[in-house]
Parts: sequence; C-alpha cells; structure tokens
Amino acid sequence: MIILGIDPGLATVGYGVIEYEKGKFRTIATGAIETPAGIDVELRLKTVYDDMCELIDTYHPAEMAVEELFFNTNQKTAIGVAEARGVILLAAVRKGVTIAEYTPLQVKQSVVGYGRAEKKQVQEMVKIILNIPKVPKPDDAADALALAICHAHCGGSSIKEFYNGKKKKLI
Amino acid sequence: MIILGIDPGLATVGYGVIEYEKGKFRTIATGAIETPAGIDVELRLKTVYDDMCELIDTYHPAEMAVEELFFNTNQKTAIGVAEARGVILLAAVRKGVTIAEYTPLQVKQSVVGYGRAEKKQVQEMVKIILNIPKVPKPDDAADALALAICHAHCGGSSIKEFYNGKKKKLI
Repeated sequence: MIILGIDPGLATVGYGVIEYEKGKFRTIATGAIETPAGIDVELRLKTVYDDMCELIDTYHPAEMAVEELFFNTNQKTAIGVAEARGVILLAAVRKGVTIAEYTPLQVKQSVVGYGRAEKKQVQEMVKIILNIPKVPKPDDAADALALAICHAHCGGSSIKEFYNGKKKKLI
Repeated sequence: MIILGIDPGLATVGYGVIEYEKGKFRTIATGAIETPAGIDVELRLKTVYDDMCELIDTYHPAEMAVEELFFNTNQKTAIGVAEARGVILLAAVRKGVTIAEYTPLQVKQSVVGYGRAEKKQVQEMVKIILNIPKVPKPDDAADALALAICHAHCGGSSIKEFYNGKKKKLI
C-alpha cells in the first residue's frame, strides 16, 4: 500500500510518500510544497492544491495521513494553515484518496512509542524505521513521513472496521 | 458589475449575487450551500467547492466579497470554517474571480454606517438598499448580500489602485 503523509501548512506543506507491504517500508519520495509569503492567499492556496494534485497523480497513493489541527498554539497563522488544510483534503477527496487524521500525540506514540517524545527523537526514529541515511529536510518533510509511518502502523484504513465507524480515530 | 457575496462556513455558506451599475442595485440570487453534519469533513468540503463552482458558472460574477475570519469567538467550529473558506477561495481563484475580504466591522460601517450595528439593523438595511420585500433567510444569505453591498459601496476592485497595492483592505 502506498501512503502519502502530509504535514499541512500555508507556507510549507511537508509530504512523504512510502510503500508499506508485509511489515516492510520503502521510501518513495519526500519534500515540501512551498508558497511565498508576499502573494495573495488565494494564489498560495491554488499552488498547494495544484501541487497536491500533481503529487497524487505522480505517486498514486491509496491513502493519505494528515495531521489534525488544534488552535491551542500559533493562532496567528492558524487560519492560513486551516485554509490550506481545506484544499489539501479537497485534492485528496477529488482524486479518490482515502483520508485519515492523526494528532501529534498519536504520531509520537506510534513512531517513538512515547506520546511526549521530542521532535528530534521522532526524526531519528523516522530515519531508522525507513532506513534512510539522514533525517529529511525540511522538518515538515520528516513530520510528513512520521504521519505516513503512523498510518502504516495503525494498519491503514483496513483497521477502520474495528472502530465501529469512527474512521478517523485509528488509535 | 456582478458581485458575489459569501459568508463562509462548513455547515452553511451564505451567498448573495447582486448587480451594481451606476449606483443602482439589482438582486440576482441569494441562498445558502448547506452540508450535513454527519458526513466526513472532506465530503462536506467537496460539496462546498462543487456548489461554489456551480454558482460562479451560473452567475459569472466578476468579483467576490468574502468575510475575513478571526478566532476570537467560536473556536470549536473555527477550523472547519477556515477549511471551508480555503476551498471557497480556491473555487474563486480557479474560476478567475477577483477576491476582496472584509471584516464584520467594515460591512456594518458600509451598510448601516455604524460599525457596532446590530445584526437586525444590517438585515433591515440590506432589505431597504436592495428593495426586496423581506429579509432573506437564512441569516447567512442576508450576511452574504451585506458583503456584496459593502464591496459595491467600496467601488469594487477599481478602488484598489488608491490603496497602493493593499488589495484586500478596501476601507
């Protein structure tokens, strides 16, 4: 199964594409969609949407794992991030990609085994689990790979049935 | 000039289409896009996006006036509203519709002449300015018409030049 992990944002959308078969991981692609701060928000959203569509058309992921948003912190940029997340979800649903959402706590628990793990620990575990020579840059790309790993560990969408329709709370 | 006013939301997107020529208003259409609470957010976003595209294809607005978001109130629904606003902006930019944003304060000032006007006062003024028999329902539709009137009063996007590139702050 090919999984697309997405760390949403307006300035930077981290992405990571992995294949997960029979307990084995293969890293296919990782990087970030970036939009410049000086242009109108609608043009930045269009870039995010177009690049998301291109990513999906290129790698054909069956499922997408995306970070759930909270407004505890960083309220200043929160609206832009949520708007970008809206067009990210739209790209996935229009392309027929199944969507699962995870909280940062769930990702840390799944990747490091400890919900309060430091960012560095998560990045190191991503490197080890995927057997790649170094931690991907930018951080958003590493976070996106962590989301994809989390989704694979959770059994992908196949686990949904056990959760009685609560599709998006896989842990 | 045909103006599309949009009051963004995930459950309800109010819309109002007006024509404004030589100081005269004509109401073309008003109503709301509604999405049910029980379905996945990505499907609700898809409905909002598809219906926005249909509205634009039907009425060919040159410009869209949309409410600016703040997270002072209603944080519980704020993420969904912002995600919906993201796909609304995307629909407009993909269809070539120019976008202007206004705060509730700007709308009240423009429609009633008083920034702290009550919701009822705004609705009554919408009815009077557009010369329509009664206040449109739901409230979101009336709010959307108020946004369109505000944009017309501000001279549409033609006023932009005076504001030295600050396209979105027309008042």
